Amino acid sequence: MMKVLILGGDGYLGWPTAMYLSRCGHEVAVLDNFAKRRWELELNVEPLIPIQTLHDRVEAWRAVADRRIELFVGDLRNYGVVEGVLDTFRPDAVVHYGEQPSAPYSMIDHNRSVFTQVNNVTGTLNVLWATKKLKLDCHLVKLGTMGEYGTPNIDIEEGFIEINHNGRKDTLPFPCQPGSFYHLSKVHDSHNIRFACKAWKLSATDLHQGVVYGIETDETKMDDRLATSFHYDDVFGTAINRFCVQAAAGIPITVYGKGGQRRGFLNLRDTLRCVELAIVNPAKRGEYRVFNQFTETFTILQLAELVAEQARKLGLATEIHHLPNPRIEQEEHHYNPTHTKLLDLGLQPHFLSNELLDTMIATILKYKHRVKQEIILPKVQWNGKDQEIEELKLMWAGA
Amino acid sequence: MMKVLILGGDGYLGWPTAMYLSRCGHEVAVLDNFAKRRWELELNVEPLIPIQTLHDRVEAWRAVADRRIELFVGDLRNYGVVEGVLDTFRPDAVVHYGEQPSAPYSMIDHNRSVFTQVNNVTGTLNVLWATKKLKLDCHLVKLGTMGEYGTPNIDIEEGFIEINHNGRKDTLPFPCQPGSFYHLSKVHDSHNIRFACKAWKLSATDLHQGVVYGIETDETKMDDRLATSFHYDDVFGTAINRFCVQAAAGIPITVYGKGGQRRGFLNLRDTLRCVELAIVNPAKRGEYRVFNQFTETFTILQLAELVAEQARKLGLATEIHHLPNPRIEQEEHHYNPTHTKLLDLGLQPHFLSNELLDTMIATILKYKHRVKQEIILPKVQWNGKDQEIEELKLMWAGA
Repeated sequence: MMKVLILGGDGYLGWPTAMYLSRCGHEVAVLDNFAKRRWELELNVEPLIPIQTLHDRVEAWRAVADRRIELFVGDLRNYGVVEGVLDTFRPDAVVHYGEQPSAPYSMIDHNRSVFTQVNNVTGTLNVLWATKKLKLDCHLVKLGTMGEYGTPNIDIEEGFIEINHNGRKDTLPFPCQPGSFYHLSKVHDSHNIRFACKAWKLSATDLHQGVVYGIETDETKMDDRLATSFHYDDVFGTAINRFCVQAAAGIPITVYGKGGQRRGFLNLRDTLRCVELAIVNPAKRGEYRVFNQFTETFTILQLAELVAEQARKLGLATEIHHLPNPRIEQEEHHYNPTHTKLLDLGLQPHFLSNELLDTMIATILKYKHRVKQEIILPKVQWNGKDQEIEELKLMWAGA
Repeated sequence: MMKVLILGGDGYLGWPTAMYLSRCGHEVAVLDNFAKRRWELELNVEPLIPIQTLHDRVEAWRAVADRRIELFVGDLRNYGVVEGVLDTFRPDAVVHYGEQPSAPYSMIDHNRSVFTQVNNVTGTLNVLWATKKLKLDCHLVKLGTMGEYGTPNIDIEEGFIEINHNGRKDTLPFPCQPGSFYHLSKVHDSHNIRFACKAWKLSATDLHQGVVYGIETDETKMDDRLATSFHYDDVFGTAINRFCVQAAAGIPITVYGKGGQRRGFLNLRDTLRCVELAIVNPAKRGEYRVFNQFTETFTILQLAELVAEQARKLGLATEIHHLPNPRIEQEEHHYNPTHTKLLDLGLQPHFLSNELLDTMIATILKYKHRVKQEIILPKVQWNGKDQEIEELKLMWAGA
């Protein structure tokens, strides 16, 4: 059993990961600065299911599961906080979810673009420096994104690619073409971590994760107070989750552009298992490795059709609407990313099924009265034209 | 003739570029926040030749050349400053030297590492956002570095490489393996700029520059008050310049490790010409292009031997000492980077010659009494061990 520190432990993925690893018997601590709860206030969005404070959830977990999760409040941009927490808890592994996670948020304006990159890059640099300074034998498990690669016209490998050129060859970092300032921040992190592993003999696993869907885990189901932060809005929500909410709310499913954009997806439960697999099979000293963390690919239109079909079976009259794409991205493209490393370690995927969509939609229906329809349609435009978000008078609430 | 704004106009390259372009007939403005002058105070280093303030140099240029360079004082991290200057001057081209330029400085400690990345990335993001917001038809000429590529075992192309993989092909960004937090900051910039050009139809030229050497240009020679900031210390000095100072001062030339590290180099005069070529042959709207900006490659040991040989001819008893390499880098490696794009635009290189080394050493001898020998040997260790720099009690002087 290991000591695991989870950065961003208040989030959609951080909190279920904390409970899951705690229940597996690991000694778990979480750190958060609750920044995302403030971003929610800026945009007047909130999770579908009411969420307790992190303090109260940790206490509920103790009551329900009879296990203790240690709670640290702190901001990763403050080096003293990072070094202090690492020195106090001395983890075997750090799971780093503690970043601004939204592409649309990073595209709202210059303040949020700069904030996203500075916040994400600084936090990760501080973790690297503190690990080195404290001489911790600590494996960094960093959440990256499949979006770091973009959509090249060749198959995507797991982090590195062998290139033959002018009669010579080398295995080099896979070229990245990220599509937002958020995705760019993850590319910056990846470059920084790779260098630190080489220069300082740190060890890190960079999980290039696909889009996560799902609302429940075995642990969230143990008690209403243990629910996770499930978003369906245009800024923090993601495709399948948002489509299920639209179906349940009786409004059209909205696809950006043609919907031919193909992406990797995975179930929330698989995220937890992938992180566990990375922790219990750590990278070696000096090793920086990348796992492509998704279980299947779909086009956005395929997903919309799957959700609509299932919703109709449940008696919901669900339509699909195509919207002008607010993003700058290809709507038809090659997409064939490798994803064998986690399977080799033992991942058994929960594939997207009609049963799962049934369950998701049924769960959402219980909270249908909380759905704010006005926060679902996209307001942030990648090209900055016709930004409806400007009507919100979103200046800058500070960092 | 064009309106050109030079960011970092107080620096080793910024100031000679300003004078050169002004003398070519362009309307030139410079911006600086004098941050580097404070970093010099932190480390107790100073340029070999006494440097006037930027205000006084601009005034001297007016007196000597009868041309006006407009001076803005400001910090690129402040978005209001950036938008204000761009809106006031409305340049056709921005030449962006305004970043923390030293790899050793970025490796001193976590503060300087985070500062380097935040400073460099934020400044460039602000320039991109302000250009977009003001709808300026303005070409960004950004100084990057050949160090973005690292030393892969294949030939280096200019920014992009065609990759054939599993029967498909694409032209993708050349994979980067930078070797310090400074070099990483330039890679982050390159990714951000490429995205902004695509998303917002901006135009940019990313000059992946080699190591610059030289002390004089036609313009600096016009008056003592017009000298540029020539560094020979371990933090802001670079190989050829430092070797010439060691030779002139009668102390051994110090080579890091075996000296087999091969790098691209160019004369200061060629930097100015390359920037001019980029400006007068601008990138198209939406285009992000990379020029590898160097004229020849040498190993560090070759350079040491060239300088030592020339110094001996001048009657200086010059030895070469090998020091343990403070950096994490290969000391024997393949290195064959392409560099045809600037030649195609008309660059006529000033190659490194015995005459040039003669002139450099002779110029340095005039200032030999100002050489501080204690600031030449490396103090910053990439692996953080035996950091002599710590003896300086360098905490953090703030940003």
